[in-house]
Amino acid sequence: MYTSNVKALVFDVFGTLVDWRGGVAREAAVFLQRHGRSAQQADAFADAWRARYQPAMEKVRSGERPFMKLDLLHRENLDEVLNESGIDHTQVPAVELDDLNLAWHRLDPWPDTVEGLTRLKSRYIIAPLSNGNVRLMIDMAKHGGLPWDAILGAEVAQAYKPTPEAYLRTVDVLMLSPGEVCMVAAHNSDLAAAQKCGLRTAFIPRPHEHGAAQTTDLKPAGNWDWVAQDLVDLAKQLGV
Amino acid sequence: MYTSNVKALVFDVFGTLVDWRGGVAREAAVFLQRHGRSAQQADAFADAWRARYQPAMEKVRSGERPFMKLDLLHRENLDEVLNESGIDHTQVPAVELDDLNLAWHRLDPWPDTVEGLTRLKSRYIIAPLSNGNVRLMIDMAKHGGLPWDAILGAEVAQAYKPTPEAYLRTVDVLMLSPGEVCMVAAHNSDLAAAQKCGLRTAFIPRPHEHGAAQTTDLKPAGNWDWVAQDLVDLAKQLGV
Repeated sequence: MYTSNVKALVFDVFGTLVDWRGGVAREAAVFLQRHGRSAQQADAFADAWRARYQPAMEKVRSGERPFMKLDLLHRENLDEVLNESGIDHTQVPAVELDDLNLAWHRLDPWPDTVEGLTRLKSRYIIAPLSNGNVRLMIDMAKHGGLPWDAILGAEVAQAYKPTPEAYLRTVDVLMLSPGEVCMVAAHNSDLAAAQKCGLRTAFIPRPHEHGAAQTTDLKPAGNWDWVAQDLVDLAKQLGV
Repeated sequence: MYTSNVKALVFDVFGTLVDWRGGVAREAAVFLQRHGRSAQQADAFADAWRARYQPAMEKVRSGERPFMKLDLLHRENLDEVLNESGIDHTQVPAVELDDLNLAWHRLDPWPDTVEGLTRLKSRYIIAPLSNGNVRLMIDMAKHGGLPWDAILGAEVAQAYKPTPEAYLRTVDVLMLSPGEVCMVAAHNSDLAAAQKCGLRTAFIPRPHEHGAAQTTDLKPAGNWDWVAQDLVDLAKQLGV
């Protein structure tokens, strides 16, 4: 069976392994209340912040801007979201904004994440292949107990997904062929890009990533090598 | 006390954390016997292989060659050492040479290494800052149980120590200032280069790295921030 060819599993992180919306909203709620707003805006605030994620990376992918850490893009986006929310970011102490920006470093894993990664690590090399920068991934791993073998991804590759170099340079660092590496994600578009580069693919649905009314990525939408209910199920399917 | 400024510890690996000479000699002994040589040449074989380490990296540091993974340099050096030993490497199956080259991935940690790293990890970010490439460090960590938070070093920095960029780009990836990062090594020259870049420094003697007759790096030879007997002692000095 071809599972035996896979030597490393690389993971999307935001949404696939951790609950970015809940984590960001939790810290945004405290911030908003401190600035005289309703904590009930927190989910919308998290969504608005995340909505600026792809456009900000697109400027790097297109070559309009040089590669820079996601933390810097998050920080720029935060200023814009605050202004959009009617909070003048120039009136908020920088140290407070810098701390809110670190909400992305303190996201909680989904309930199956740590057990699944731990089981998969017993047989495979496991590493994030996230657009998050290395320090963000380190802090998140220490916060949530994610047992990575290495921190890979956009910063090491100097390219943001779904640019092919993000996948191919990660494969090169691992000294494997693309077919020996499996991309694990809750997003069909990420898997499609990885598959085009020759990687194996595993889909895990995260139907509440965007809240109760989520309409995207509820089901696999490609010919993926594995489809699992969660990470523990994926580990079982991969024999560990 | 200024220990509280340090947020990350980065480590030299070959010699400081693992016994490269014993590990390489162990696998070389088997190889040499298979090719009609005495296993007693194994220590000398390991020394000869290691002796080509700095000259090979120097070609990269000087710009004569582009950056390439240490595994590739080790593999080239292996061919030369074999020829020097009277074994025509072109007569040995490549798969056998490739496997011997992986001896560097299977080095054992010194007795205090895993306990020391585990203790230090409880308060600090810990990562290798080695000239070994990422895959080599991953395999070694899985072999010996080294609990890294991330794999940093020459390949991520695209520069070999003691080039300043090897230290400074690692500090940048960690999003810290040089004074918040401590280089831990058994080699005074490594610490001197790190100190010039503004890093903190910790010296640990490994008096048997080069065997019983070792004459180098028996003592600290600089104004290092910490000098410890071993990694467990360093952890105690750093309060963990």
